[in-house]
Amino acid sequence: MSFTQRLEETAAAVEAHLGTLVGRGMGPDVPGRLGAAMRHAVLGGGKRIRPFLVVETARLFGVPAESALDTAAAIECVHCYSLVHDDLPSMDNDTLRRGRPTVWTAFDEWTAILAGDALLTLAFDILARPSTHHDPAVRAALILAVAQASGAAGMVGGQVVDLEADKLGQPPAPTLDHIRKLQAMKTGALLRVSCEAGAILSGASAADRDSIRRYGEAIGVAFQIADDLLDAEGDAATVGKAVGKDAAAGKATLVSLMGIDAARARLAAVEADAIARLTPFGTRADTLVEAARFIARRTS
Amino acid sequence: MSFTQRLEETAAAVEAHLGTLVGRGMGPDVPGRLGAAMRHAVLGGGKRIRPFLVVETARLFGVPAESALDTAAAIECVHCYSLVHDDLPSMDNDTLRRGRPTVWTAFDEWTAILAGDALLTLAFDILARPSTHHDPAVRAALILAVAQASGAAGMVGGQVVDLEADKLGQPPAPTLDHIRKLQAMKTGALLRVSCEAGAILSGASAADRDSIRRYGEAIGVAFQIADDLLDAEGDAATVGKAVGKDAAAGKATLVSLMGIDAARARLAAVEADAIARLTPFGTRADTLVEAARFIARRTS
Repeated sequence: MSFTQRLEETAAAVEAHLGTLVGRGMGPDVPGRLGAAMRHAVLGGGKRIRPFLVVETARLFGVPAESALDTAAAIECVHCYSLVHDDLPSMDNDTLRRGRPTVWTAFDEWTAILAGDALLTLAFDILARPSTHHDPAVRAALILAVAQASGAAGMVGGQVVDLEADKLGQPPAPTLDHIRKLQAMKTGALLRVSCEAGAILSGASAADRDSIRRYGEAIGVAFQIADDLLDAEGDAATVGKAVGKDAAAGKATLVSLMGIDAARARLAAVEADAIARLTPFGTRADTLVEAARFIARRTS
Repeated sequence: MSFTQRLEETAAAVEAHLGTLVGRGMGPDVPGRLGAAMRHAVLGGGKRIRPFLVVETARLFGVPAESALDTAAAIECVHCYSLVHDDLPSMDNDTLRRGRPTVWTAFDEWTAILAGDALLTLAFDILARPSTHHDPAVRAALILAVAQASGAAGMVGGQVVDLEADKLGQPPAPTLDHIRKLQAMKTGALLRVSCEAGAILSGASAADRDSIRRYGEAIGVAFQIADDLLDAEGDAATVGKAVGKDAAAGKATLVSLMGIDAARARLAAVEADAIARLTPFGTRADTLVEAARFIARRTS
């Protein structure tokens, strides 16, 4: 099976699983409007990179894909809740995502805020269920890792730092270090924990978990440099969203501070670093090697 | 020690513990603005009824107060996040809470949304830590119970049903059953799980956990009827917030549908039901008996 086929196969399995978890799996007491907004937020697309990383790191340590789907879906719920809140009028004020109206546009602001809240809560609900893993120590470790990656010192903190620059004009002169830290928190932490989750699920050794964690950190950095490069030089039709947004907004990015050539060189170095972290696993990690290439070289 | 002294003592211990957990306990990576907004949301007051219920139900089963403080603080973080989001302009549009500016008024809308998100995430972070309870099975059970009580079929769902009536005029003719269900979700579920949490923490038997669960359900109902009665006939200076809001907004409540006398009679019956659930525990449950009376008979 090619890498792309495998990615698509996992995305389809995750989509189906999310359909159940955010559908009848929530029980009869969920108000119809809330359930519809939550499904609008999580169903219907995306490459499902984070769930793929969960499934493939779990597979590396011998856990079959179907046993990693709950964890994968929970992390995707965290990712989707963050998009719903980021799109709100008081934050990025976006009306379209993946060619469809954002949740607040399709419903309204209060419904979008509450649908995001409910998705975040559902993520921890799923992770705490015995069906996610028979060993409660594994479930507690997953919850701790996901909560720390997505909270005030992780994803939410990164969004605050980003909006502070946008809305309040802070800091006056962003440095490379500042942008790196922001990106490591805002997008890097959840990508990293997606990889770590597979290692936690499978009871990998501390050394193996550490290798995977460093792999996850590197692909988080690669993901963001690739994103900045696509925004700076991509073609809107290929990228599938507006490009040149950062430059138009006068927003400092790695690319605007380093220049395109240096950013490309850095991306290649980070890709190589990610792949080097997989050396201990030999050919068993071939899919994760391809995932690092895919993330660094994506055109959309 | 009198009941009021005990309530105040627990509130002070919870306040101090929250000060650490939502302060330096979050580590150095939390942006200053975010940390300040989170502390504005959780510190400086309230009766801390939910933490008190956690601590007292834990004590009933032999767990000392200090061993229940993490769980108590986590549930208070969930309660406070829900207030921050409920106060937003797109929801209740409230500018004052406990005589202080609401978080979105003191900071701004996006900061308030993200501070709420971070507090909800922190609650699960705290519950997943080994310091909360040495047994990961207990931690996973706490997380599952708290997530289910506060998510789409619990607190968040109740807020959606409430706002549907307010903003969209649904349902056209609210019934007592409709209001009871809304209140059981919106405020009842978190009060109930505060009681259950103490039983979970202490490894109480299934039968004891069930008694405490039913006690928690009853005090949740009592809390809400008392709230409606205070709004209908309380004095603003004593209640400490605006009264008559429901009637002015033409909002159906238990009191508007049943009448004041029937609501009072129902409140007395629910208080008696709550207390009856504690019979198996004899005099060990005296503080919880007093808590039921306090909640049903409060004047503010």
